[in-house]
Amino acid sequence: MGKEITTREQDYSQWYNDLVLKGGLADYSAVRGCMVIKPHGYTLWENMRDQLDRMFKETGHQNAYFPLFVPKSFLEKEEGHAEGFAKECAVVTHYRLKADPAANGKLIVDPEAKLEEELIIRPTSEAIIWNTYKDWIQSYRDLPILVNQWANVVRWEMRTRLFLRTAEFLWQEGHTAHATKQEAVDETIKMLDVYATFAEEYMALPVVRGLKTESEKFAGAEDTYCIEALMQDGKALQAGTSHFLGQNFAKAFDVKFLNKENQLEYVWATSWGASTRLIGALVMAHGDDDGLILPPRIAPLQVVIIPISSKDSVAQTKINEKAQQLVKELKAANVSVKYDENDNNRPGWKFAEYEMKGIPVRIALGARDLEKNVAEVVRRDTKEKQNISLDALTNHVINLLDDIQKNMYTKAKTYRDEHITKVDDWNKFEKILDEKGGFISAHWDGTRETEEAIKEKTKATIRCIPLNAEQENGKCILTGKPSKQRVLFARAY
Amino acid sequence: MGKEITTREQDYSQWYNDLVLKGGLADYSAVRGCMVIKPHGYTLWENMRDQLDRMFKETGHQNAYFPLFVPKSFLEKEEGHAEGFAKECAVVTHYRLKADPAANGKLIVDPEAKLEEELIIRPTSEAIIWNTYKDWIQSYRDLPILVNQWANVVRWEMRTRLFLRTAEFLWQEGHTAHATKQEAVDETIKMLDVYATFAEEYMALPVVRGLKTESEKFAGAEDTYCIEALMQDGKALQAGTSHFLGQNFAKAFDVKFLNKENQLEYVWATSWGASTRLIGALVMAHGDDDGLILPPRIAPLQVVIIPISSKDSVAQTKINEKAQQLVKELKAANVSVKYDENDNNRPGWKFAEYEMKGIPVRIALGARDLEKNVAEVVRRDTKEKQNISLDALTNHVINLLDDIQKNMYTKAKTYRDEHITKVDDWNKFEKILDEKGGFISAHWDGTRETEEAIKEKTKATIRCIPLNAEQENGKCILTGKPSKQRVLFARAY
Repeated sequence: MGKEITTREQDYSQWYNDLVLKGGLADYSAVRGCMVIKPHGYTLWENMRDQLDRMFKETGHQNAYFPLFVPKSFLEKEEGHAEGFAKECAVVTHYRLKADPAANGKLIVDPEAKLEEELIIRPTSEAIIWNTYKDWIQSYRDLPILVNQWANVVRWEMRTRLFLRTAEFLWQEGHTAHATKQEAVDETIKMLDVYATFAEEYMALPVVRGLKTESEKFAGAEDTYCIEALMQDGKALQAGTSHFLGQNFAKAFDVKFLNKENQLEYVWATSWGASTRLIGALVMAHGDDDGLILPPRIAPLQVVIIPISSKDSVAQTKINEKAQQLVKELKAANVSVKYDENDNNRPGWKFAEYEMKGIPVRIALGARDLEKNVAEVVRRDTKEKQNISLDALTNHVINLLDDIQKNMYTKAKTYRDEHITKVDDWNKFEKILDEKGGFISAHWDGTRETEEAIKEKTKATIRCIPLNAEQENGKCILTGKPSKQRVLFARAY
Repeated sequence: MGKEITTREQDYSQWYNDLVLKGGLADYSAVRGCMVIKPHGYTLWENMRDQLDRMFKETGHQNAYFPLFVPKSFLEKEEGHAEGFAKECAVVTHYRLKADPAANGKLIVDPEAKLEEELIIRPTSEAIIWNTYKDWIQSYRDLPILVNQWANVVRWEMRTRLFLRTAEFLWQEGHTAHATKQEAVDETIKMLDVYATFAEEYMALPVVRGLKTESEKFAGAEDTYCIEALMQDGKALQAGTSHFLGQNFAKAFDVKFLNKENQLEYVWATSWGASTRLIGALVMAHGDDDGLILPPRIAPLQVVIIPISSKDSVAQTKINEKAQQLVKELKAANVSVKYDENDNNRPGWKFAEYEMKGIPVRIALGARDLEKNVAEVVRRDTKEKQNISLDALTNHVINLLDDIQKNMYTKAKTYRDEHITKVDDWNKFEKILDEKGGFISAHWDGTRETEEAIKEKTKATIRCIPLNAEQENGKCILTGKPSKQRVLFARAY
C-alpha cells in the first residue's frame, strides 16, 4: 500500500537511497552532485543546527558570516591546505552573461567580463577568515576570537551520494584564535566533546573519539580529532572533526599579536565542523526496512495523530474534538504534533507514510476506541502497539518519546560495541572485515607506508587513534613491528 | 574618548559607513563587493531571521534548500528573468585547480576541467526551484507548495555599499505554487503584510505598502508589491518585495497539474524576499551622531551593566554581587543582558562603545549608588538618565525596553509622515526633492515614458503605487495628462 523500499538485505546502498528519497528528506537536482533538501529533511537539519548552535553559544562562541568566495591567491598561501583542496574547487572566472548574437534567446559568457583573479567557491573558510583575522587581531586583548559560521560550501567530488558526499553541502565551521598553544588545544578537545555529546544525546548515535593519522588529517592542520560512528552495514562514518591548526594559518596570513610581555607572536588556531552529512549517518544508523527512524529529540515531527474516519458524523465530530484537544495538550508540553485530517488518503496509507518518514509516535483515533476511552499508540522504533487510556495519553507520550530516544541509543550502542573486534592476526583481520565488518581494534606500527598498504589490500583505513585508550605492547597487524596502542580500522563512508 | 564618527550633517554617506564599521556590524572583505558580517551584525540578523521565520511558519510555510548553482540554460528559460539578471551573474566555468608548472607553489585553473555547461551562482532561485517543482507537482493534491529558503545569493553589482548593495548577500526567498490565480494573489499580499508587520513591530520602521510600476517590477513577475521605508536623509529604501509571478515560470519550466476536473493547467506562482539590506535600513532610519540605535525587540543585546570600579575591594564585591543578581533577574524575564567586567577598559570608554553599538539600555553600578540603593539607567534612544531604585530595577527595565521600542517607531513615523508631501506643480516637485526630500505624492499619467523622463530629470523614481489609496482625479505632474491616483516618488537607495 505504501511506497516500495528495497530491503537492507537486498541492496544496502539502494535501501539508503530509498529512505532518503521516499522518506522525503532530499531529492536529486538538475545540477551535478547537488541535492535539494526537502522540507522534512530541512526541518530535521534545523533541529540539529539549533541544538548545536545552542551548545556553541553555551561554550562562548558567536556566529559571523564571511564571503562565499576565496581569491585563488589566498588558497595558495598555506601549502598543505592548497594541495588538499585544489583538485575539487569550483572556480568563478567571469561576472557577466550576454545575449548570444548567434542564437536568439540564448546567453553566453561575456568574454569582456573576465575576473582579474579567479575566485574559488569556499571549500572551507580558513583562508578567507585568517586573512580577515589579520585585521582583527593586534594584541592579546583581542584574543581569544571564538567565532562560528553556518554556511554552504562546495567541494567538487567526482562520486557523490545524497547527504554523504555532495558537491554543495551545508555545515558549520568554527574558527578560533588563541594566545597560547594550550588554549587552542583545549578548545579543539572541547569542541570534539560538544560534537560527541550532540551525536550521542541528540542523534542517539554512539561515537568513538579519536585522533586522525597524519595521512587522514585535515589539509593544513597539525592534529585532527574526530568522532567516528558505525553504520548498520558495518562501515564507519566520520561524524565531525575538530582541528588543532597550530600557527600554520597565522604564519600563512601573517597574523601576529602583541603578548602581555609586549612581544610579537603568531596566533594559535583551531577549526571544527559538522555538516548535513550527519543526516546520512542518522538514516543509516537507525533506519529499518519500512523507512526512517528518527530520534525524538531532533525529529521534525514527534507525534502524528491519525483519525480512523467514521461515516457517522456525530462520531466523526467526537474524533476531531478529541484530536484537537490532544494536539493542544501535547503542544503545551512542548511536543511537536500534527493531526492529519487529510481526506485524500486512507488511514493505512498514512500509517505507512509516517512510518516511512520516521515519525517517532503515531496515535490512531477511531470511533470504537473513543467509546472505550482509549487510543492506539504505536512507537516507530520497535513498532509496539498499545491501547492507552485517553486520560493518561499526554503523559504516556511524553515518557514514550524519552524511552524511544534512550532505546535507539542503546540499540545502536549494543550493535556498535558488538562490532569492535580485537584482532591480532592478519588473516583474521581480512576475514572479520569481509564477514563481520565494523571496527577492528588492532596494532599498527605507526608508519604511513603500512597504513597505505593495508588500505590497498583491504580498503580499510585507520578511522582513528582512540583517545584515552589503554597503552599495551603489541605487534603491528601487518608488519609485526612493535606498537604501543591499538587503533581502529574500518571500511568507511 | 570613543571612536570618532562623522556627523550626518558633515557627510551622511560617511556617517553610515562609520556606524556600520565602528558599530561592529560588518567589515569590508578582500573580495570585491563582499562583506564580512561581524558577530554584532550577525546576531542582529539572527534575531531578525528568527522572527521572520516564526512568522513564515505561522502562515503555513516550511523551509527547504535548493542548489547554489543554476545551469545557464535554466536562466534562459524565462525571458524577462534572463534579461534582468544576465548582466550581474557570477559564472563558474571550471571545477579544478592544478599546480602552476611555471611558478612553484602557485595554482592555475586546470583547462581540462572545464564544465560542459556553465553554472551561474544563484542571483535568485526561481529557475532552479521551478525546475524542481516540475517533479513535485502532478495533481491539485500536491498544491499548494508553501516553501521558503534562507540562503546566500550573488549579484555582481558594480557599485557596492555595506549591507545596502553587496555582491553576495544573505536573504530568504519564499517560492509558492498554487492551483488558482486568486490563491496566488492572496499569498502575495499575505506575505507583503508579514513584511510590513515585521518592519513596523520589530524594526520600528514605518513602511508604505504598494505596487511597483512596470519598469520597477521584478524580472519575471506579473506584479511586484513592496514595502518602502524612509531614511533620515530623505531617501527611500525598498525593504521587502512580494511578487505575483502568474504562470510565467510554470510555462517556462512546463509545470502543469491535473485539476479537480481532471484537466491539465499551468501552476500559479509567487515569490517574496527580504535580505540583509534591512540592516542598512535599520542603521539609517534610527542611528544618531553617537552611533547605532537598535530596537529592543531585535537588538543583539538589550541591556549592558557596567561597573564603576571601586578600589575598595569590599565595595567592589558588592557591585559584582548586585550585578550578578540583576543579570539573573533580567535573564529570568527573557531580557538579554551582559555584565561587562572587563578591566582593560574604563567605564567612560565602555559607555561610548555600547552607545556606538546601539544597545538600548545601559545600567551603571557604582559604590556610591549602591549605598543609596540605586543604579543609573540610561536609555540609548533619548539618552535620558534616571536613578532607579534597585528594588524596582528589573521591572523598570522591562517597561523601558517596551517604551524604547514604541518611541523609536513613533519618532520614525512622525519623521516619515512629515516627509510625505503632496505636490501638484512641477517646479515645486523639483524644489521639494532638493530641499526637503522624502516621498512626494503626485499624479502620474501611468506611462513608462513619463516615469523615465522624471527619473532622468530628477533621479527620483516611482517608489510605489500605494495600496488602498484614495481615488482622485488629477493631472500628471510632468505631462498634465489625466490621472486617477497619486503615486509616491522619491530618490532611493
